Order: sequence, then structure tokens, then C-alpha cells
Amino acid sequence: MTISRLTQQIQFIIEIDKLKQVLRQTLLTDHSRQENSAEHSWHLAIMAVVLSEYAPQGVDLSRAIKMLIIHDLVEIDAGDTFCYDVQGNESKAAKEAQAALRLFGLLPADQASELRSLWEEFEVRETPTAKFSAALDRIQPLLHNQQTEGGTWRIHGITRDQVMKRVAPVETGAPELWFFVQQLIEDSIAAGYLKDVPATAPAK
Amino acid sequence: MTISRLTQQIQFIIEIDKLKQVLRQTLLTDHSRQENSAEHSWHLAIMAVVLSEYAPQGVDLSRAIKMLIIHDLVEIDAGDTFCYDVQGNESKAAKEAQAALRLFGLLPADQASELRSLWEEFEVRETPTAKFSAALDRIQPLLHNQQTEGGTWRIHGITRDQVMKRVAPVETGAPELWFFVQQLIEDSIAAGYLKDVPATAPAK
Repeated sequence: MTISRLTQQIQFIIEIDKLKQVLRQTLLTDHSRQENSAEHSWHLAIMAVVLSEYAPQGVDLSRAIKMLIIHDLVEIDAGDTFCYDVQGNESKAAKEAQAALRLFGLLPADQASELRSLWEEFEVRETPTAKFSAALDRIQPLLHNQQTEGGTWRIHGITRDQVMKRVAPVETGAPELWFFVQQLIEDSIAAGYLKDVPATAPAK
Repeated sequence: MTISRLTQQIQFIIEIDKLKQVLRQTLLTDHSRQENSAEHSWHLAIMAVVLSEYAPQGVDLSRAIKMLIIHDLVEIDAGDTFCYDVQGNESKAAKEAQAALRLFGLLPADQASELRSLWEEFEVRETPTAKFSAALDRIQPLLHNQQTEGGTWRIHGITRDQVMKRVAPVETGAPELWFFVQQLIEDSIAAGYLKDVPATAPAK
């Protein structure tokens, strides 16, 4: 161990404290405030543990947990892009790639490379582990929107079609949870939390 | 899979959202607000990944990460007890044991038992994995107190003796990081962030 290696690691650990300031659209289940991306990542990691029995063959659970705790770090530079913001999502990839270079680049080269690969695996969503992780990332806001009687769906006038498109990765990433997700959406429509009309214009 | 099993798991996932409302004494590094226990747990999980090369033989890294993301869940019922609050820490164990029964008890019995064991392993601090996890849990607030020019040390008039006692588990849990911790404390005293006098009375 060299001091400079540890110094780099500590600088990274201090830098990522900023993720606690990146606010998502999602509300906490008690409606009190918006969720931040650090606590969101924590929530997903526990979901991976608790829902691991529904992970399809080929999912590496430890890798999924690591992936979930680092998957939003790029938002420190790029910010959180609301998933129904069409324009924002067009420039998202480039901003996040730049952020990954800077942030993971704070670490010693071997670790920078390892964590950047893990983040890229999540983004590309090709491996069973990345697909399962993405599925959890889509399910968690559903739970929050249901618990907050529509939450961001109502604030932004989101419709069933938009949500179905957003949660589609659950069908392949965690097929055993797909029925539950569909049911949750139906229940949310029945309760008046989500509009049952096709989208007429992209949400801003 | 039975629906009731999944229902229990989802109820647990919704319930633990409350950890995002449990405030710690620690300030975020930009001084803006107190940290909550969910984002703190996330921070520790990333520290485990980044600092894994300093983990002593016998540490199971995946288990440490799982342990760190669940270690503070009991605070949902028991609240966060300031580590320098002597009276509060006397009743802490009983309150937390009760909380563990209720919270993990929301899960199906096999998972309740698994997560309660993991939490108990962390609390008892006998295995290398628990000792390493505890070491990270002691190091993170040090970094925050240094970054906030004394942070909670200054607010509560904490002294070197108190901090040395608090961080002692690092020496056995992560010996390769012990020199760094000692140096950080010396630097904090030199900078005026921490008082170099013995404690005269327990902090309230």
C-alpha cells in the first residue's frame, strides 16, 4: 500500500458524498420530500438482497449489489434526469459518460477501470446481472408512487402507456416479478393514481 | 413463490423507506444538513468496495456489504443514538433488539432469521467481517468531521480521548488503516477541529 493510493481512495469517498444532494423526482413514501440518489441506491441494494430469490439464472447477486450502489454516481456531475423527460434523456448519455470519466478517474487506475466497467455493464443492460439490477431500479419508484397516491405520476400527468414503457425491462430482467408489477399498475389506475389514457405529449 | 411471501417482502421494502428520515449527528461534507442513516449506510457500502484491499484475512466482502446496508435498520424504531451520549447508549441495546424483532419480522421467517443474524454479527463484532464493517462505520464520520472543520466534534465539544476510544475498533478491524486514522486525528487537532484535552464530563 502506498499513501498516495489510499489518498486517492479517500478523495473519492469524500467526493461521492455529493450524491446525497442529488434529488430525484420520486417522493419518500411519507410524502415529506424528494428522495436523493444516495438513499435510493441504498434502497435498491436492500431490494436486491430481499428479492434475490426472483433473480433469473446467471445473476451474480454480489455483483448486482455493487452495481446498484454505484449506478447513480455519475449524477454527481450529470444530475438526475427525470425518466419521462424526453429532451433531457437525449443528452443524458454523453453527460454521464463524461461524469464517469472524471469521478471514477479519482480512484487508482485499476479501481477506476473496474468501477467504470461495472457502471457500463449496468447502462448497456445486456448481462442477466445488469438486467435484474435495472428491473429493481424500475420497481422501486413504482412502489413510491403507489405509496404516495400517485406521487410524481400525478404531478407530471404521467399515463399508463408511459409507465408500461418505463417498466418494460422488468419483464426480461426479473420475469417472476412481472405479474406483480402489472398488478400494481392496474391497482394504481383503479385507485386514480395513474391516468389510463395514451400520452399525448412528452412530459417536460 | 407464493403471493403472500412476496407481499411480506414488499411490505418490508416499503417500511424501510423510513430510515431515510432518521437523522445522524454527522453533517454532510458541504455542511448543508445532517446525514440520514440510509445514505450513511450507502456510503459505507461503497467504502467497503473501495477499501477492500485493506480488509484483513477472513473478511467476506460481499457479506460486509450486506451487513453495512442493513446495520442501521433498527434505528427506524430505536432512533440514532449519538455515539458520545453515555446515557442514551445504556438503553440502546434493548431498544435495538426490540426493533430488530419487529422490522426483520416483517419478512418471511427464513429471511427474518438471516438478516437478524447478520445484524447480530455486526453488533457482537467478533468475526473479521463484522470487525472490518465496524471499522468503516467509525472511519466515515471522521472524514465528515474533518471535512466540516470539526463538525459535530465542535458542536458537542468532543475531545481527543473520546474520539480515540470511539475509533479504537479500527486498530483491530482494519489495521492497515490505523495509521491513516491516527494521522487524521492529529491533523484535526493541529487544525483546531478537535480539542486536545481529556474529557471532563460525558457529552450529553
